[in-house]
Amino acid sequence: MREVHIAGAAVHPFGKSRGKTAADLGYDAVTRLLTTTSIGPDLIDVGYCGSSYGGSLLAQRVLQRVGVSGQPVYTVENACASGASALHLAWQAVASGAADCAVAFGTENLSGFGGGALPLTTNDIEIELGLVMPAAYAMRAQRHLHDFGATEADLTMVSIKNRRNGAANPRAHFQAEVSADQVENSRPVADPLRLLHCCPNSDGAAAVLVCSSDLAREIGTPTVRIRASVVRSGRFHTSYRDMTWPDITARTAEAAYEMAGVRPSDLDLVELHDAFSIAELLHAEALGIAARGKAHRAIADGEFDRDGRVAVSPSGGLLSRGHPVGATGVVQVCETYWQLTGQAGRLQVPAASVGLTHVTGGGIYGVDNGACAVHILTSD
Amino acid sequence: MREVHIAGAAVHPFGKSRGKTAADLGYDAVTRLLTTTSIGPDLIDVGYCGSSYGGSLLAQRVLQRVGVSGQPVYTVENACASGASALHLAWQAVASGAADCAVAFGTENLSGFGGGALPLTTNDIEIELGLVMPAAYAMRAQRHLHDFGATEADLTMVSIKNRRNGAANPRAHFQAEVSADQVENSRPVADPLRLLHCCPNSDGAAAVLVCSSDLAREIGTPTVRIRASVVRSGRFHTSYRDMTWPDITARTAEAAYEMAGVRPSDLDLVELHDAFSIAELLHAEALGIAARGKAHRAIADGEFDRDGRVAVSPSGGLLSRGHPVGATGVVQVCETYWQLTGQAGRLQVPAASVGLTHVTGGGIYGVDNGACAVHILTSD
Repeated sequence: MREVHIAGAAVHPFGKSRGKTAADLGYDAVTRLLTTTSIGPDLIDVGYCGSSYGGSLLAQRVLQRVGVSGQPVYTVENACASGASALHLAWQAVASGAADCAVAFGTENLSGFGGGALPLTTNDIEIELGLVMPAAYAMRAQRHLHDFGATEADLTMVSIKNRRNGAANPRAHFQAEVSADQVENSRPVADPLRLLHCCPNSDGAAAVLVCSSDLAREIGTPTVRIRASVVRSGRFHTSYRDMTWPDITARTAEAAYEMAGVRPSDLDLVELHDAFSIAELLHAEALGIAARGKAHRAIADGEFDRDGRVAVSPSGGLLSRGHPVGATGVVQVCETYWQLTGQAGRLQVPAASVGLTHVTGGGIYGVDNGACAVHILTSD
Repeated sequence: MREVHIAGAAVHPFGKSRGKTAADLGYDAVTRLLTTTSIGPDLIDVGYCGSSYGGSLLAQRVLQRVGVSGQPVYTVENACASGASALHLAWQAVASGAADCAVAFGTENLSGFGGGALPLTTNDIEIELGLVMPAAYAMRAQRHLHDFGATEADLTMVSIKNRRNGAANPRAHFQAEVSADQVENSRPVADPLRLLHCCPNSDGAAAVLVCSSDLAREIGTPTVRIRASVVRSGRFHTSYRDMTWPDITARTAEAAYEMAGVRPSDLDLVELHDAFSIAELLHAEALGIAARGKAHRAIADGEFDRDGRVAVSPSGGLLSRGHPVGATGVVQVCETYWQLTGQAGRLQVPAASVGLTHVTGGGIYGVDNGACAVHILTSD
């Protein structure tokens, strides 16, 4: 397998873009990517688009508008891991030598749904049963608080930290800090989760340029190296499972650490799938950046702050940056690219050289049976 | 790149399955595949599902039910080329050494739409303008008849041939021959196309096992070799284009012939994307198995019959076998696998050793701006 680099990143700011389709948002992000990297569309050998709700031939509808015309392109779906799956396939194409230059992007317009639970399919039995995502995470939260002595105030600290981070991010859906009072008085969604413990449904798009070493040198933009790209699916269980242990995250991360030759203690920053505040506790422990049952302590001690032991979601995370499903896995990599190339501005994590991105999505037949993706990036 | 083989194929018969979801149909096909090949789900390193309308996490919803649990799986969308795109990614994974064994399947339930044009997206401008698929192909037919002297009777011959082939196929949606009178008196859809010049919207699923040479030997089932796997997208045009020349098919086929080291004259059979009778004329010419403007003559002379110069759609094609969008690209490969391993029964093409499969779909911004895939298979 060849070394693979990211040589550019671009984002259509997340938020509410009711007038724009997923194709419009994706077009904006990819156009910015080509402008930033000063490359022409002919250089792109292959394109991968991650989206859950963007419709048929979305990759073509975006890429043909920027002039990627004739090359193979694909739209990939893997729930919240759709964008990261697109990136994984781009990485695989370049690593295997099948391509020298790939564009991976994610795009989504969730405003189109007008609110309510996002359906996995037209007859989604979990939604019919009321097991929507906030309910599933609320159950996990109840169990975590019961088992490990965390409190609702600990969940609130996650929201406060990530909103504080996102307040400095011009690409974030929410760019304002929140107080403990605001979080604790926001309306209940699924006990113990309140509105400000939940990420918003957002619209947005993000794109990265994935290329070989030779081409990266030729393009001449700042680059980072993809040291690991791993996708896994959930394991089917009908029997008891520990709701406080996201097995899918642990397995995916383990494979990524092995591929990268990196330990959790080597990480300077992590962009984590904090779809709900409890998710940061669960996944931080499964990623190995906090001991089991101790993530809330790490947060209380400032260890996950931007200047802490390991910055967790310095860009604001899903809680602040927002969550346009297919775009999230890519924007995490964009933000990490800027961190590792010293371009993160007010978001910059000091001396960042190793970063990890993590998305996990879906929940069919149980609490973590969807898809998960972990990427580990290092400075070049 | 390593040699890649197909070591098994299975199909859920095409037709109307209103009570089954796309996941149910896919589950049936993959279950049959595991039974046929006598392998356990643990052997599968990765899974790719092709579908346009099956919803989120479809690959997981199918594969977890057969016990593929934990491995990376992806759902891929590329309109009518979705299934073939899934196969291409499986081929790439095995060819590059990233996987030894992949399952590629396609599944779709179109009954759920209840009739009418299939939307590409929620605001499909082509459908709003009336440029639905039958209309697009009708315009191409008008031009082809005008330019090359074919007649409506020539279009009818395509339907008669492919329905005759499909009459012997137990997996086909339509298993009855049709007469010229029946075709010519079926109701008009888009002049000159009548109902029996159009493929049906079908439900169905198909699956293949893709593996390395070593694993193929170990499994011990009959195998064929994938000699070429090529996906391309349409080229954007707003100016004049020749509607009788499907550039996307020609470009994709040219790359496939080069990769395989095979010429059109080497082909014993072709499974072609005959979504409409005119499509067989257009694509046969672009695939190089008939001279430009002469495909109708080849059909009239019996050259595309099962025992002719090159059998075209000996399984019945889309016109007879039906067209569950995401499944079509995979079922073509299943049928070709059975042909090249001498298991095609009443459909058998004599001494078949080289086969090509072709799908093309979509039509955004023009007549052939979607996705196209060509696979070339040879006997092992």
